[in-house]
Amino acid sequence: MSEVIEKGKLAKKASYQIGICTTKEKNDALAKIAEGLRKNEKAILAANQLDIQSGKEKGLSPSILDRVELTEERITDIADAILQVIDLTDPIGEVMETIEKDNGLEIDNTRVPIGVVGMIYEARPNVTVDAAALAVKTGNAIILRGSSSAIHSNLAIVKIIHEALANSAVVPDAVQLIEDTSRETASELFRLNDYLDVLIPRGGKTLIDTVVRESRVPVIETGAGNCHVYIDDSAKPDMAKAITLNAKLQRPSVCNAIESLLIQSDWFDQYGEEVISALIEKGVTVYGDTPVVDKVPLVQEAANTDWGTEYLDLKISVKIVEDVYEAIDHINTYGTKHSEAIITETADHASIFKQKVDATTVYHNASTRFTDGFEFGFGAEIGISTQKLHARGPMGLKALTSNKFIVSGDGQIRE
Amino acid sequence: MSEVIEKGKLAKKASYQIGICTTKEKNDALAKIAEGLRKNEKAILAANQLDIQSGKEKGLSPSILDRVELTEERITDIADAILQVIDLTDPIGEVMETIEKDNGLEIDNTRVPIGVVGMIYEARPNVTVDAAALAVKTGNAIILRGSSSAIHSNLAIVKIIHEALANSAVVPDAVQLIEDTSRETASELFRLNDYLDVLIPRGGKTLIDTVVRESRVPVIETGAGNCHVYIDDSAKPDMAKAITLNAKLQRPSVCNAIESLLIQSDWFDQYGEEVISALIEKGVTVYGDTPVVDKVPLVQEAANTDWGTEYLDLKISVKIVEDVYEAIDHINTYGTKHSEAIITETADHASIFKQKVDATTVYHNASTRFTDGFEFGFGAEIGISTQKLHARGPMGLKALTSNKFIVSGDGQIRE
Repeated sequence: MSEVIEKGKLAKKASYQIGICTTKEKNDALAKIAEGLRKNEKAILAANQLDIQSGKEKGLSPSILDRVELTEERITDIADAILQVIDLTDPIGEVMETIEKDNGLEIDNTRVPIGVVGMIYEARPNVTVDAAALAVKTGNAIILRGSSSAIHSNLAIVKIIHEALANSAVVPDAVQLIEDTSRETASELFRLNDYLDVLIPRGGKTLIDTVVRESRVPVIETGAGNCHVYIDDSAKPDMAKAITLNAKLQRPSVCNAIESLLIQSDWFDQYGEEVISALIEKGVTVYGDTPVVDKVPLVQEAANTDWGTEYLDLKISVKIVEDVYEAIDHINTYGTKHSEAIITETADHASIFKQKVDATTVYHNASTRFTDGFEFGFGAEIGISTQKLHARGPMGLKALTSNKFIVSGDGQIRE
Repeated sequence: MSEVIEKGKLAKKASYQIGICTTKEKNDALAKIAEGLRKNEKAILAANQLDIQSGKEKGLSPSILDRVELTEERITDIADAILQVIDLTDPIGEVMETIEKDNGLEIDNTRVPIGVVGMIYEARPNVTVDAAALAVKTGNAIILRGSSSAIHSNLAIVKIIHEALANSAVVPDAVQLIEDTSRETASELFRLNDYLDVLIPRGGKTLIDTVVRESRVPVIETGAGNCHVYIDDSAKPDMAKAITLNAKLQRPSVCNAIESLLIQSDWFDQYGEEVISALIEKGVTVYGDTPVVDKVPLVQEAANTDWGTEYLDLKISVKIVEDVYEAIDHINTYGTKHSEAIITETADHASIFKQKVDATTVYHNASTRFTDGFEFGFGAEIGISTQKLHARGPMGLKALTSNKFIVSGDGQIRE
């Protein structure tokens, strides 16, 4: 039996055990995991050094090595994050709706764990802990499939998790790590419908696209954010400038940073140059359509492909539009339906924009950078779903739950 | 451009129009569709006769021909069903949750249409109307891909729907019928991620399995029901017998009918023969394990494959188990996680069964036949989801919705 199928079976069986653990039992297990990570900090750092050495030998880029690398401080942060998960409300067992039928049947729609969650991810070993902790909290078993670049760290971490769970009411088999990081094990996960209820990719666009394309197991697509700020004719200049700079610059490498700026033409004539020059001063390369190039120095001519590009870098495309309707059309054509903002003092325009723009999150007079599970107050974030099914937008603990109808009767039969 | 891509694009564009129609506009469109179907009854029946003739020439089975066939009465029923949809509450626009942040941001999690729904289905032309009506009610565009056996009926019906929508506020492009019913158009739908948000298969196991296996578009899996009744040691004999007969016989061809009966051994010694003989008297072929064969005449020896078989017919497998735990293990091993019932007077056993059995719907002292959107009071049923994501169990209008976070600020940026 292959490693993936074997661990799939173990995870499925464990899911029935962890699925009915009490909140106290799950929180106790989480506390033991946090304690284990702190106590075994040296073992984790030693294993992590093997990954770093091996990565250097393979010539991995500094930015990937930075994602792989753990430090004492990072391990402390990871353990602290588990303590925060302990404090969150356990969603499992909630009766979301009760339906009482005339025939006396009582139907309780109750919140239950999904069962077995698969997580396929790249370099960062903190995802191993983070995903395991969220799974334990929500009574799910989890199958972790990280990348070869962090395998030593992941093995060390999961060993500690297993030791912690062995001293808790949660069965250690609830957390499974696929040790073989070859392509074949990813492909096997894509077909593991018998044991896996959902597969969540966390990483770059190539990984996510592959999972969406190949997986037969239901996927929650997280990811790409070609986000826009649209500055309407009535926008307050200072607010528009502050939001644009924040949305582009506060952390350019993340999915809720903007990649494109749309400006209403009259507003552009008055204030456009100031905003765009401020971006350029901060080191942003600006790709503009013709009126922008004509008016503002140092702007490069945008190619058609720029409107659909997620730079994740100090670059931005800028387009002049006639009105809010053109802005909406442009966003619905080129956006990735992630986070979109309008800056306006015209209530009607804000209302139309909120209604017509197709995205997980639509903002009026605020930065797109707030699309985040912690900023939304969920206390945790599994990822940001960009699909319409199951969960859309920032996903908290509830995204790892399903429902079960529990029906109580006294002999009812259907006529 | 292929028919599927062309209609995908039209549907996507139309989804932005129908998505913001008011409840009144959508209900008015539905009323016009119902009126159109009634007025054009003769045209529909004439087209349907072409399908029936063609089906007879191709040698389709009487049961398939019955599913294809329309009558005046069936058309009336179909039109009446639309009027019922009009009466349902429109789920779109509901603010499900409001989050107020310390920084003044107000975050409304609002219910929105999914966008473009794909429905891939078999013979029955009533699904064409049913699916279109539920899509219109929920502000979704829909792409219908029926089977060749009902293509003339489907073309006639969609022509009428388009005429009705042309006289309404809903754009006719919101309802698209794929006219080419070759395998290629199904395959194209599986890859239509740019224009299709979800694909729902309705039909037999082969169709559903194909869609789950092949589709890159997110799927809602509906379907297979290998359902059980477990009779516990304390079960009231009359209740156990009545529920078993009802769950098996009231409509054997549907997914929430039972395929397997589990009986606690002591109860079996006292009352088993009576229940099983009653099934046999009603024409049911019984496949039992050895103790059942030994004790009850006319029972055939069950093969191992029987425990996992969905007969959808007057057949049942019967197994003797020692206790509720063995029953739960058997159900979680062989069941399809659809609908499962325990008959018991022991509260603890009922509680364990409800908690541990992994299924969309778990019953205590009631027939599994109640797993149904109408019986649950949803007023409509898209299908019964057997997956854990998005929707599980009977799906009403809400299963055709997603969410959007609408955030209002006054210049907030992220620190």
